[in-house]
Amino acid sequence: MFQQKLTEIDQQLIDLLSKRIAALAESTPISTEEQFTNVTLSLAKASVPESIWKNLVISTTAAVNNPSSPVTELPPRRVTLIGGRGMMGRFFSQRLSAAGHHVSILEQDGWEQAEPLLGKANLVLVCVPIEFTIEVIRKAVKYLAPTTALADIASIKAPIVQAMLEYHSGPVMGLHPMFGPGVKSFLSQNVVVCPGREVEAFQWLVDLIENDGGKLIVCPPEEHDEIMVAIQAIRNFTTFGLGVFLAEEGIDIRRSLDFSSPIFRLEIGLISRLLSQSAPMIVDIMLATPQRRDAICRLANTFQKLAQFVMQCDRDTLIHEFKTAHSCLAEDINCTLEESTHVIDALSTLLAAKEVGQKYKHPSFNSWQSQTRYSPQMDK
Amino acid sequence: MFQQKLTEIDQQLIDLLSKRIAALAESTPISTEEQFTNVTLSLAKASVPESIWKNLVISTTAAVNNPSSPVTELPPRRVTLIGGRGMMGRFFSQRLSAAGHHVSILEQDGWEQAEPLLGKANLVLVCVPIEFTIEVIRKAVKYLAPTTALADIASIKAPIVQAMLEYHSGPVMGLHPMFGPGVKSFLSQNVVVCPGREVEAFQWLVDLIENDGGKLIVCPPEEHDEIMVAIQAIRNFTTFGLGVFLAEEGIDIRRSLDFSSPIFRLEIGLISRLLSQSAPMIVDIMLATPQRRDAICRLANTFQKLAQFVMQCDRDTLIHEFKTAHSCLAEDINCTLEESTHVIDALSTLLAAKEVGQKYKHPSFNSWQSQTRYSPQMDK
Repeated sequence: MFQQKLTEIDQQLIDLLSKRIAALAESTPISTEEQFTNVTLSLAKASVPESIWKNLVISTTAAVNNPSSPVTELPPRRVTLIGGRGMMGRFFSQRLSAAGHHVSILEQDGWEQAEPLLGKANLVLVCVPIEFTIEVIRKAVKYLAPTTALADIASIKAPIVQAMLEYHSGPVMGLHPMFGPGVKSFLSQNVVVCPGREVEAFQWLVDLIENDGGKLIVCPPEEHDEIMVAIQAIRNFTTFGLGVFLAEEGIDIRRSLDFSSPIFRLEIGLISRLLSQSAPMIVDIMLATPQRRDAICRLANTFQKLAQFVMQCDRDTLIHEFKTAHSCLAEDINCTLEESTHVIDALSTLLAAKEVGQKYKHPSFNSWQSQTRYSPQMDK
Repeated sequence: MFQQKLTEIDQQLIDLLSKRIAALAESTPISTEEQFTNVTLSLAKASVPESIWKNLVISTTAAVNNPSSPVTELPPRRVTLIGGRGMMGRFFSQRLSAAGHHVSILEQDGWEQAEPLLGKANLVLVCVPIEFTIEVIRKAVKYLAPTTALADIASIKAPIVQAMLEYHSGPVMGLHPMFGPGVKSFLSQNVVVCPGREVEAFQWLVDLIENDGGKLIVCPPEEHDEIMVAIQAIRNFTTFGLGVFLAEEGIDIRRSLDFSSPIFRLEIGLISRLLSQSAPMIVDIMLATPQRRDAICRLANTFQKLAQFVMQCDRDTLIHEFKTAHSCLAEDINCTLEESTHVIDALSTLLAAKEVGQKYKHPSFNSWQSQTRYSPQMDK
């Protein structure tokens, strides 16, 4: 009876969501802010929390950007993925096959197949771990036709694009997908593109990424490598270091999550994501270039310097450091405040929804006083 | 015409959302997972992305937990907030007034009013910066009646609850709201409660927090202080240190955000939130106890140790450290993986929605090839 009522409501909701997305797509633009404010009164009357509406507006607006069914009138290409059974290799294999291309895989133990697999490919994409990338390129190029497009997806670009240009005379491009395994499509994902030579040979590939909802960032390999020092090496090192420290200290994470603010939960979530990845991969990303290693060393020195002020209880210097950092960064980082608020709200909503689930399981909550009564170490 | 169509759709959606929340509230429980899977086919038929439905299910389920209009049949209490014009003071003032209580404020310059304001209060809540808390308690107690309930909201509990118990003979309790200014109600927020003495005098206050959607964590002050070392001191220090480092390095944050994965954006968002708070407050939270200062020092040593392995390119040791941390923490932190995925999806959705807004403004995007053509340093 209840189940049926919910099913009816849900079916109507889904129809309306579909209509809403269609209406937004065909319309003159209306900002998400307008989409909130226009209905504030209606929400209040219906006792619907504003946060629900905000989420609905944001997610239906985002859906307007969704790829329609990919228009692949193109002839299918022959693509060979070297290292195609790794995490990112499988991702590319899946997306390329879904778009109708003929995907072959060349793994470490399959080099006797190199001649047919590489010699006839329109595109060879190198998806091996970063430490083997240049070695594999050197090994692969002797099988390539001069028209074969050669690309890689490693997280360093300058030396690799350089090596591809040097060893191969045909089309060359460096790619860096800015996301990890677990992502299911390019939708809303950034992909860095470092053009090498004869880039028109890759047009179909970048079109595929864009049609799938991906966002291209085109830049020289050197700019990519410089920016990745901050994005990859520094961030990974900090998160890794914090994880190592929490483990060393033997902190009771579960109990601390009971207490915690959403931000601490989020930080633990980020540590969890990093540590669940491949250890050699993350370590190699940190070690990849002298620039990265030097930056990590400078970061540790900054932490050490600040920790010394903390040990000396040097409040004034710490406040000064805080204010200096704020004034240097404020202009550039405040744009992310709204985003982090949205994210914290999303986490709070998820936790509240889980809480509702819990309450069903434990309908009678102890009051806080009875909790204190049962705990002998209280009230001391 | 379009505007009218959207208005009609939105009104129907709001009505249905209201019905859905009511249906969930009156029902036998149905898990959020079931609420997804039951409609997978309908979603596909209507071309509605699953992520929209997930958000809708999570946010309407969370709304079931929402406080109904507060049932305040209680007699209104006289509450005096010492330091009530600060950020957290204003928050408590607003919530207590909204619930019908009589709120007075005692500020630094108002101690000549102390006798009437403190002597007749049912509850005195100390909301001053942490460095003044004990001094203010000592100053306030001589005005209190033996029945006045005394509480504080500082982020250290053991010495403060101890001081309140020592100086005041009546009801005593320590509170620590685990959220910062900017939050509008207690909904889905954690509040740590450290009972001191005659806790029944605070029943109405904790009821108010719970009715407002807050979650109470009852524990001894010592446990609170131990756990806050990780939650507050360590996390604040890492985020602060990362902010100082980015400022020192002069990294172009805006350009790096163009490139970045959602996780890097999130990290910048967390730095932004921390740096936008009061410098003395954040510094005092880090310096507050010898335990906190020692832990920060050990954290900096861990970073230094790991950075040395990085400088020496000691890949094996780093991989070993990574795996050790993972095996120590895995059991405790994997529960947050789902949460961080949800949060990253929420951020990606927000960015995609913004992107749609941008496209309206710049309808003709340059293709990636024309981008490269205009940039002279490309293709080198």
